[in-house]
Amino acid sequence: MQPTPTLVRDGDAVVILDQRRLPFHTERCRLESLEAVATAITTMQVRGAPLIGATAAFGVAIALHTDASDARLAHALATLAGTRPTAVNLHWALGRMRERLEGLSEDFRHEAAWEEAQAIACSDFETCAAIGHFGVELLQNLAQRRSGQVRVMTHCNAGWLATMGAGTALAPVYEAMARDIPVHVLVSETRPRNQGLLTQWELARAGVPHTLIADNAAGLLIARTEVDIVITGADRVAANGDTANKIGTYLKALAAFDHDVPFYIAAPLSTVDFSCRAGEEIPIEERDGDEVLTFTGMDERGQPGRLRLAPAETRVANPAFDITPARLISGIITEYGICAATALDSMRTNPPV
Amino acid sequence: MQPTPTLVRDGDAVVILDQRRLPFHTERCRLESLEAVATAITTMQVRGAPLIGATAAFGVAIALHTDASDARLAHALATLAGTRPTAVNLHWALGRMRERLEGLSEDFRHEAAWEEAQAIACSDFETCAAIGHFGVELLQNLAQRRSGQVRVMTHCNAGWLATMGAGTALAPVYEAMARDIPVHVLVSETRPRNQGLLTQWELARAGVPHTLIADNAAGLLIARTEVDIVITGADRVAANGDTANKIGTYLKALAAFDHDVPFYIAAPLSTVDFSCRAGEEIPIEERDGDEVLTFTGMDERGQPGRLRLAPAETRVANPAFDITPARLISGIITEYGICAATALDSMRTNPPV
Repeated sequence: MQPTPTLVRDGDAVVILDQRRLPFHTERCRLESLEAVATAITTMQVRGAPLIGATAAFGVAIALHTDASDARLAHALATLAGTRPTAVNLHWALGRMRERLEGLSEDFRHEAAWEEAQAIACSDFETCAAIGHFGVELLQNLAQRRSGQVRVMTHCNAGWLATMGAGTALAPVYEAMARDIPVHVLVSETRPRNQGLLTQWELARAGVPHTLIADNAAGLLIARTEVDIVITGADRVAANGDTANKIGTYLKALAAFDHDVPFYIAAPLSTVDFSCRAGEEIPIEERDGDEVLTFTGMDERGQPGRLRLAPAETRVANPAFDITPARLISGIITEYGICAATALDSMRTNPPV
Repeated sequence: MQPTPTLVRDGDAVVILDQRRLPFHTERCRLESLEAVATAITTMQVRGAPLIGATAAFGVAIALHTDASDARLAHALATLAGTRPTAVNLHWALGRMRERLEGLSEDFRHEAAWEEAQAIACSDFETCAAIGHFGVELLQNLAQRRSGQVRVMTHCNAGWLATMGAGTALAPVYEAMARDIPVHVLVSETRPRNQGLLTQWELARAGVPHTLIADNAAGLLIARTEVDIVITGADRVAANGDTANKIGTYLKALAAFDHDVPFYIAAPLSTVDFSCRAGEEIPIEERDGDEVLTFTGMDERGQPGRLRLAPAETRVANPAFDITPARLISGIITEYGICAATALDSMRTNPPV
């Protein structure tokens, strides 16, 4: 399901797919230091909540290469925790690393860090498969109710590029393809960073039929009954089910709700932040205005290029995520099953494993 | 209010501001034939429902230059009516031209056509002023209720660039500036054609404080109570108040409704199509997919450039307008006053003039 691994270990470093260069160039990048890992997360060379978590875990292992002291461990955890504020998988992964490493003798820490990071990566792979397994039932049911393709709208990229496995929102789509359930994915451009182009690229490589749309077109297509289900990923889910995901998700959820189209979030349970009671408590990252003022694409010679839309002094607001209230969410597809957004507490109090 | 006229007569031709080149280059273009006028409308060298109507009217006058026969008039009306399907002002303006010219002797038609086109242009100028006059009351009331700037969100460009006057949605903003009511405009990029950049450009020239956002950010900003009112233009309003406007308008209306933020349409009464009962009957223009697959901006040398986002063979859906149901619209700001979206019939049966 991952035609090209998003991240692999290479000695005391990791090699990542540089997602800032996609979909125009497939370039790998070797991250050999804590600083390089932190920068890769901040600048979105790696992105997607699950992949950010795994990358940060490997970052801890890399940081302990020549110094595995308490101070160095604390420094690595703090540095990586500060890279991006919204995705909670980052903090979940770093919490796992802390728990595993803090009590250990310095002599064993470096190796144990690699082991734990690898375990996080493997578990993400399995989580994606389980999300695909549960989510495909929704598509199967829709396929039985109508002839022709099941039309799935997604937002941003929550496919294999965002994880260590088959993805979150796209895992059910890939599983549907494997089961010969006809699907067609509506891909939103996802301004300002255009992660929809990553989705377009990975779907094209996987042979999944798809249509690219401007973010603005989502409402009309839903209103015209051209969408059977909306599935997106998540960066943080509050205890009450309110969900932070890529900016624009809330607008799609509103349109789906207005037309009785099911709207699902696909995310590992590690995305749920039980310490966060409601959406208002989720910190929203404000990114550089230049992301809105400039545009990256491929010029007529096939080379990556960059254009400016408006003068550099133009005032810009560029929040990277929005909050979709639980009342608009039909369910959350986790690795343990599909949970009502307003009943997440059941997953907490009765651990399903 | 129009620092640079969008259209002026020049002998037997008109000179327009080429809006495809804006905001990077201010270029004028002389339209000397019916075909040139039709192409200018189709390719969006001129755009904005009121300006399209006025331009088409001048197109009829230009078409009759050497031949003012019945056949020529019918050909001109049909050619111009076929340029764009959604904006109804086009058909309204052509209807006025037909009414004035059809019964006239050929000898007087050419001059009468210029007169009637000029009358349409003047009436649009006055209409914009009246919309500004009525709409500014809303901003005035909001200013009295809160300290600081009144934060107006708009979509696409419904400013002076879209009309022969001060604009529709932006007319109340310009009137507020004239009355020293503090305003701040939130400008959506408006993919795929980025008409938000035209709005950014005209607001900057007029010294109106503003902030540019990605279309996706509208929902979060409304949810965070950073927006006091949403005002957009319209391309066609059905008799029941359902409104076709630039793709993405419906999503903003949903978010505004979800947070009790007033959502207004500003449009001349000529935008209301009483023959169209409801939104479903409004034809929605589907434009070339290349508008989504490519992006126009300014390169680092300050020259206009064009980048490709995804392979040319990528399947694209590119509807240019969506329908905002009347139930989401707080009111329609017309040149005769602010009408409830669900009570447009009162404007029809009791003509306010």
